[in-house]
Amino acid sequence: MTDLIRKPADNDHPIHDLLRERWSPRAFADRPVTDEQLLSLFEAARWSQSCFNDQPWFFILATQAQPDSYAKLLSCLTDSNQTWAKRAPVLMLMIARLTFEADGSPNHHALYDLGQAMQNLTVQATSMELVIRQMAGIHPDHAQTIYQIPDGYRVLAGAALGYQGTIDILSEKHQQREVLPRERKPLSAFVFSDRFGETAPFIAE
Amino acid sequence: MTDLIRKPADNDHPIHDLLRERWSPRAFADRPVTDEQLLSLFEAARWSQSCFNDQPWFFILATQAQPDSYAKLLSCLTDSNQTWAKRAPVLMLMIARLTFEADGSPNHHALYDLGQAMQNLTVQATSMELVIRQMAGIHPDHAQTIYQIPDGYRVLAGAALGYQGTIDILSEKHQQREVLPRERKPLSAFVFSDRFGETAPFIAE
Repeated sequence: MTDLIRKPADNDHPIHDLLRERWSPRAFADRPVTDEQLLSLFEAARWSQSCFNDQPWFFILATQAQPDSYAKLLSCLTDSNQTWAKRAPVLMLMIARLTFEADGSPNHHALYDLGQAMQNLTVQATSMELVIRQMAGIHPDHAQTIYQIPDGYRVLAGAALGYQGTIDILSEKHQQREVLPRERKPLSAFVFSDRFGETAPFIAE
Repeated sequence: MTDLIRKPADNDHPIHDLLRERWSPRAFADRPVTDEQLLSLFEAARWSQSCFNDQPWFFILATQAQPDSYAKLLSCLTDSNQTWAKRAPVLMLMIARLTFEADGSPNHHALYDLGQAMQNLTVQATSMELVIRQMAGIHPDHAQTIYQIPDGYRVLAGAALGYQGTIDILSEKHQQREVLPRERKPLSAFVFSDRFGETAPFIAE
């Protein structure tokens, strides 16, 4: 049996293991996620912070245990993503409400707050040894239609969720991508102080 | 001495302590955050995931150790937020690049990805016993000007960061708000399955 690939962050400064170990594999094991696990994942999202506590996050999910529901959600992914995501036991769509519930005015923090909630869910997943790979490659208009999502909501991204699998189940192209090193720009490129573009003084060059 | 207020999530299903204990206090202790801590916080943001790994997140920060820098950042907050945030040892602005670095095309996931990175930073903060309160109440145009932030970047929110303090330093109005219970809508209101608005079957009503 092939070993599972680990790709901990190549971090320059100490970070918590739940953040260090997270990455976005395409290979999922043939092992279901339990209802109790799903409840904990969405409960983690639930307790995220948001502008005016509006909680503008919404999720649609499908599990392999419900084949019709699963096929419906799979149809919202691009063909390229379907090739690997179709093995994940859980598929999801992340949706933001673009106006405040209280008064219907535009919520300019809705997408940001959806992202925060999704990261809470992701940290919870990591703590339960589950992995998530998110996808921008979805068909949002198709999703909006088949799930009857009202105007004023935006389907932002999709996600595949489950236990990590071995890469031998992937296409050759995806196997190659799966082992590429993880890369990030340095702190000096995005942490500034007195002027945008001027690295904060506590960051050694 | 007054005790520190704890407000763990009133969660219905188990979630990780780092997510359960996080909340957004306004009262900060007179205790600095070290450079090593700051490095770990931004390192945590750095290893977040993003669409095409574009990493569209940028931060401007100021600490009380640099009074001029601190006053500059404080001026970007609304008066109401300044009244409590002025005691936090660290103030920050969160900024998204709205176009992809690779080709300049619009990045519709920039705000979402900024939110994900900020939540990574927040989890790291919680793990170091630091607290964060974010603010939508900022003057983004003023910040854009004084920090010379180019077009194509959006100043989305501010944050105060530090060790929690006792609420006796807050105004009476803010003391009252600080002890209000934390409330969230139920999972049934935002986790759907076959149709938007139809609660997923694994969630008991």
